[in-house]
Amino acid sequence: LNPQIASLPTTIFTVMSALATRHGAINLGQGFPDTEGPAHLTEAAAAALRDGRNQYAPLTGLPELREAVARSNARFYGLTVDPASEVVVTSGATEAIAASLAALVSPGDEVVVIEPAYDTYLPVIRLLGAIPKLVRLTPPAWSVPRDALAAAFGPKTKAILLNSPMNPCGKVFTPEELGFVAGLVQQYDTYAICDEVYEHLTFGARHIPLMTLPGMRDRCLRIGSAGKSFSLTGWKVGYITAPAALATVVAKAHQNLVFATAPNLQRAVATGLDQDTDYFTTLAQDMALRRDILAAGLRETGFDVLPCDGTYFLTADIRPLGSVVQDGEDDQTWCRRMVEEAGVAMIPVSAFYDPAGGEPPLHLVRFAFCKKPLILEQAITRLRDRV
Amino acid sequence: LNPQIASLPTTIFTVMSALATRHGAINLGQGFPDTEGPAHLTEAAAAALRDGRNQYAPLTGLPELREAVARSNARFYGLTVDPASEVVVTSGATEAIAASLAALVSPGDEVVVIEPAYDTYLPVIRLLGAIPKLVRLTPPAWSVPRDALAAAFGPKTKAILLNSPMNPCGKVFTPEELGFVAGLVQQYDTYAICDEVYEHLTFGARHIPLMTLPGMRDRCLRIGSAGKSFSLTGWKVGYITAPAALATVVAKAHQNLVFATAPNLQRAVATGLDQDTDYFTTLAQDMALRRDILAAGLRETGFDVLPCDGTYFLTADIRPLGSVVQDGEDDQTWCRRMVEEAGVAMIPVSAFYDPAGGEPPLHLVRFAFCKKPLILEQAITRLRDRV
Ligand SMILES: CSCCC(=O)C(=O)O
Ligand SMILES: CSCCC(=O)C(=O)O
Repeated sequence: LNPQIASLPTTIFTVMSALATRHGAINLGQGFPDTEGPAHLTEAAAAALRDGRNQYAPLTGLPELREAVARSNARFYGLTVDPASEVVVTSGATEAIAASLAALVSPGDEVVVIEPAYDTYLPVIRLLGAIPKLVRLTPPAWSVPRDALAAAFGPKTKAILLNSPMNPCGKVFTPEELGFVAGLVQQYDTYAICDEVYEHLTFGARHIPLMTLPGMRDRCLRIGSAGKSFSLTGWKVGYITAPAALATVVAKAHQNLVFATAPNLQRAVATGLDQDTDYFTTLAQDMALRRDILAAGLRETGFDVLPCDGTYFLTADIRPLGSVVQDGEDDQTWCRRMVEEAGVAMIPVSAFYDPAGGEPPLHLVRFAFCKKPLILEQAITRLRDRV
Repeated sequence: LNPQIASLPTTIFTVMSALATRHGAINLGQGFPDTEGPAHLTEAAAAALRDGRNQYAPLTGLPELREAVARSNARFYGLTVDPASEVVVTSGATEAIAASLAALVSPGDEVVVIEPAYDTYLPVIRLLGAIPKLVRLTPPAWSVPRDALAAAFGPKTKAILLNSPMNPCGKVFTPEELGFVAGLVQQYDTYAICDEVYEHLTFGARHIPLMTLPGMRDRCLRIGSAGKSFSLTGWKVGYITAPAALATVVAKAHQNLVFATAPNLQRAVATGLDQDTDYFTTLAQDMALRRDILAAGLRETGFDVLPCDGTYFLTADIRPLGSVVQDGEDDQTWCRRMVEEAGVAMIPVSAFYDPAGGEPPLHLVRFAFCKKPLILEQAITRLRDRV
């Protein structure tokens, strides 16, 4: 069997969700909302099943969805996008990342990856025979170490994978940080795969696609997610915006990895993207409220809460909990113990670091706050009772 | 950009469908039915959207679908399958093939591929750094050249990719042929990726999964397709049955390529698999009728029709058409001309051969007969008027 794949752990999200179920724990691990997306979207998806368009969608997506993606790029970011040649619909953002990497990188190429990193990035890069160059953000501010980032680029660099707003740390890259990244991408004549699945989930901080920076329009593949933007994570509909020269090649990767995506879900997602700006504002406001509830509760419980300006997630330091963290216990062990003892599932942040790299932070845990306020309160109560 | 991907042509199915649309041609190219699957399946999928299970499905698929896949293996093939550990649901069979290959093969491994081959096989094998060893069936009987097949196996062979019932040639491998393949797989201690998406579409000939042959239970990944079994090709729901040791690794590939598949479609597909055996019998009978209509019409029109015992497709020799085939014209040129001049789209069979290999047959075209009888008659009339 392929050792690159066989040696991988089952994703921590699946592991912790299974443990949560087994122990009847509140699941603040895997990032999915416990409320559904807009009813008119599920209704649109249901209606679309009934009118005889259940055969293969076009390879790059239904025109109505590609057009909606283009409109959304214009409305939110002032980007002019050709729906016919610059949008590729994928079966979720995970596939979008795999297809983008497959289109760009060849064996021996280097890809700059910022840690903590989403857990599919490194396996896909390695599956393609490419080499990840890892750069770690510095907690607690999750700041960008500019020298290390610059040093990660070199003549073999093919791309940087940039996730902003960033999972797991809730970081939204600032205009200065983005400018620094853009400078490196241009200096080394490379590309950026921009995982922007949380683009509509920022709290105060403004999300700026790297693609909108000067000189970056033709160097970026910008990935969006219907699951995250419409609270329907199971639908697995993603979309890539890229210059035509890149989009064509991404489409060929998509053709061989999956080929097409369910038309009824695509049509409903088009409706979703065309909703009033109010929808997106409310989505972010509701999520900010949840972040605030969780952050305040965790602070009162004794955690150090790290900054969070976006995504479904925030990170917290468990060290101030003192004796609740047993001698020599790391984040992984602690999370596994807490799902059982406190009845709350969370994700150890060290799971977002290359197991083959140096020692990651071992004192940070990630909480998903995309849950009902009452559930968040209950989780806090459970944690407070235990710690 | 990755030359393995960038150099690929856009799939012939998309190219010919686009030409068909442009010229108002009857599309007997891309393989999708022009009627929908059972209404109770689309209704089940619509109902499932409404009851609050639109977040991530489990990585390997919803239990109800995995259980239905296991039941279907038992009912049709007497295979005992553990739904918890031996089934992986994928976003269509294309993803199933990519995930199976990613799980099995490492750079430098060899994979035996039988030509004519479905058009994603070679690109995915090469993307993984593995080496396809090609063996050509011999038309017009599409017989297996046993010596060449045996010679394709060697110490570096990791797997054979076996598609039966086979696209594009409508071949259903006989028990003897399967026995020969099974012997080689065991002799060289390798695996078989069995693309059986047309398992329920055979006409007289019986489909036998390679997995059911003695000694093959633990060496096969058996791929099924809801799109093909329920005439809902757009849904992109596939399923892999494999021994637990393989399924675990395939799940990890799936985790990194796509992660999960829409729960509402999975639930409807489970309903589909549990339908009475009558459903499957009728599906095949209806398709056999369509094959007969097309085959007879093509024969009357002057084509030599090759044998076809299964799938959506049959192949035909254009040489007997005489002067209708211009001097030096190959199947590709002829198909492009006919979509315009006759108003019928078909697929040149040479598209199923490695462009880097030796000269393929250049006189064969593939027709999809998964269309309404009236449409097939109209296509025949159009062809007859032209040729
Ligand atoms: C694809 S399951 C994981 C969901 C997610 O994005 C997360 O929890 O980080
Ligand atoms: C995935 S589009 C092609 C459909 C098909 O299987 C075929 O036409 O051969």
